[in-house]
Amino acid sequence: MGCAYGSDMPEHITAERTGDVVRITMNRPERRNALSTAHLAELLSAFRAVAATDARGVVLAGEGPVFSAGHDFADVAARDLEGVREMLTLCTELMRTIQSVPQVVVARVHGLATAAGCQLVASCDLAVAAEEAGFALPGGKGGWFCHTPAVPVARSVGRKRLMEMALTGDVVDARTAERWGLVNRVVPLAELDEAVDELLARATRGSRASKALGKQTLYAQLDRPEADAYSIAVEVMAAASQTAAAEEGMSSFLEKRPPTWTD
Amino acid sequence: MGCAYGSDMPEHITAERTGDVVRITMNRPERRNALSTAHLAELLSAFRAVAATDARGVVLAGEGPVFSAGHDFADVAARDLEGVREMLTLCTELMRTIQSVPQVVVARVHGLATAAGCQLVASCDLAVAAEEAGFALPGGKGGWFCHTPAVPVARSVGRKRLMEMALTGDVVDARTAERWGLVNRVVPLAELDEAVDELLARATRGSRASKALGKQTLYAQLDRPEADAYSIAVEVMAAASQTAAAEEGMSSFLEKRPPTWTD
Amino acid sequence: MGCAYGSDMPEHITAERTGDVVRITMNRPERRNALSTAHLAELLSAFRAVAATDARGVVLAGEGPVFSAGHDFADVAARDLEGVREMLTLCTELMRTIQSVPQVVVARVHGLATAAGCQLVASCDLAVAAEEAGFALPGGKGGWFCHTPAVPVARSVGRKRLMEMALTGDVVDARTAERWGLVNRVVPLAELDEAVDELLARATRGSRASKALGKQTLYAQLDRPEADAYSIAVEVMAAASQTAAAEEGMSSFLEKRPPTWTD
Repeated sequence: MGCAYGSDMPEHITAERTGDVVRITMNRPERRNALSTAHLAELLSAFRAVAATDARGVVLAGEGPVFSAGHDFADVAARDLEGVREMLTLCTELMRTIQSVPQVVVARVHGLATAAGCQLVASCDLAVAAEEAGFALPGGKGGWFCHTPAVPVARSVGRKRLMEMALTGDVVDARTAERWGLVNRVVPLAELDEAVDELLARATRGSRASKALGKQTLYAQLDRPEADAYSIAVEVMAAASQTAAAEEGMSSFLEKRPPTWTD
Repeated sequence: MGCAYGSDMPEHITAERTGDVVRITMNRPERRNALSTAHLAELLSAFRAVAATDARGVVLAGEGPVFSAGHDFADVAARDLEGVREMLTLCTELMRTIQSVPQVVVARVHGLATAAGCQLVASCDLAVAAEEAGFALPGGKGGWFCHTPAVPVARSVGRKRLMEMALTGDVVDARTAERWGLVNRVVPLAELDEAVDELLARATRGSRASKALGKQTLYAQLDRPEADAYSIAVEVMAAASQTAAAEEGMSSFLEKRPPTWTD
Repeated sequence: MGCAYGSDMPEHITAERTGDVVRITMNRPERRNALSTAHLAELLSAFRAVAATDARGVVLAGEGPVFSAGHDFADVAARDLEGVREMLTLCTELMRTIQSVPQVVVARVHGLATAAGCQLVASCDLAVAAEEAGFALPGGKGGWFCHTPAVPVARSVGRKRLMEMALTGDVVDARTAERWGLVNRVVPLAELDEAVDELLARATRGSRASKALGKQTLYAQLDRPEADAYSIAVEVMAAASQTAAAEEGMSSFLEKRPPTWTD
């Protein structure tokens, strides 16, 4: 337990592998898991380290009363334009990395997820929330604005719902978030870990290499005209048909035997 | 009351400011608020005029039994290709302007909104509907087709729902429209104004300048591959961090005092 | 009854015209309507043949216990890269053709629709499902992956739901599919034909030529930034205003008489 991923002595997070799953936990409860640049860098480093392992799934969790309150204003306020730009580029790189790692990443949202914290939930492949969870893009209530958090949220919920979240800044409850498509499942807090494990177990079956290619290709084809998406998907799927995993998948099906994955 | 926006003597609309909110009302009830070019021009002129004021919100409403029945066939039928093209370009410019004005725009939909009337609802940032409201793209039942109204409707509801609306031309009731994401809220008609005011009040808090930039950036980043959207949002958010409003927002938060917005 | 479309003696499908509607039925129940290249070619040929007729609607149905189980592994496993690429290109051409034919196409989903079978449902303009129907992208459970089926599914359901379907491979029941926007309607199996006919009747009213142009323009403008979509829709709508059908539609409306369509 408690093996470090990507950093010899992480201060802001913990990372622990159990079986095929690594649980990365934002562990600054007294700061409401605010995403300072140091915290963002440790998360990015941890995801990159996990990507290099043979783990099949990642659970992103938060310690303490909230999931994550987003950027740390104490960190932002001291920065000039270039400094903020660097911080947002780092943050965006974290979101992009979550989508590009070969593992399936599930957000375990036990409490409030706001601003870049809500962005994290929207950027994970899957999300399971406790009934107590809430989701907000609060920048619109103040003097800045949740410009970048709105990017993946816009791609998860409908346009009118995005506008309501971004312009009002108010909290959307977990049931509404499920109805809008921001999370996959809502359960009582006491059942949260079980629900995360159950969903992740179903999402990590099969060949690990095929799943990774599948996940990465999904993100590559989204948000494009359908013909462009097909251009990508056809080439990948044709190439993937020649892999050992695809051959084993088809052979085992045709021979009515359980498959054995070598990758 | 009744001060004109954008036109010395508007014939088709009324525009009235109360506090921070301008209410623009389509006022041709006997024509079911059909959008003749003269009517479209007055609406466009009114939105442009409001954009130049310090108002924070706009309510778009309709007088009479329906919200708006869309284009006026008496106006269209007499036009040649270039004439229709000019009319549709004007209509599109109105829709674009609603999305680009610095104010938050809420559609107050008390009755039927069809064709370009439905397009108006889909183009407003937010929409609140009475239970009696209905939404349709009726062109598909006839000899023309709701080609342009389908553009923002397609970006609010899912694809299969778009196809059903556009191909059948039938009316979708208000509860279904809420479920599909075409409107934010449905309330009894007697509570419509209160619900519009309540949502708009929550959507117009904070710095006016930040909200305007936020709204405009949302529309800029939508419907693009996620990496392209981030390229836009990161640059805007970094630049916005250096504004007086962002500094005040962060300082007041860190100093645990209420913020004061100068813009 | 039983007139062939696009093939003198189709082996995998039947095609039958009743009134204005052609019903194309995948008819390999013993193979769970698996989409071998021969089967795909017959479907493509049938849709192309129907496109050249004056039929107004197409129902795509499946014979036997399932709607369609997708690609035929016995057919795929023997192919090299270029062979699979050809098969997927043919499959994609079928999906594209369903969206480009002038007829309104409704999927009649009585049972399980998986992989390319689910892709067919997502690619049809409209879909009506029986309560017994189910939908899955099962590739993610195995050694290949539903890369191309995920393309139209991603454009029908939200992102988190897509990820759940593609990564878990598990079956989504019909009611959930309706809630997510993958199908338009869910009814008891005994009422399926009636519901398909009712929806298709409403979706095929009006001028056939206008509806065809409308449908094709919808697909052209989807998944693009809104300004690009308007560039397409404005030009088409202006041009369409000068057609006999548009003139008849507007004249009959203004003259308060029923329209007569000549195309």
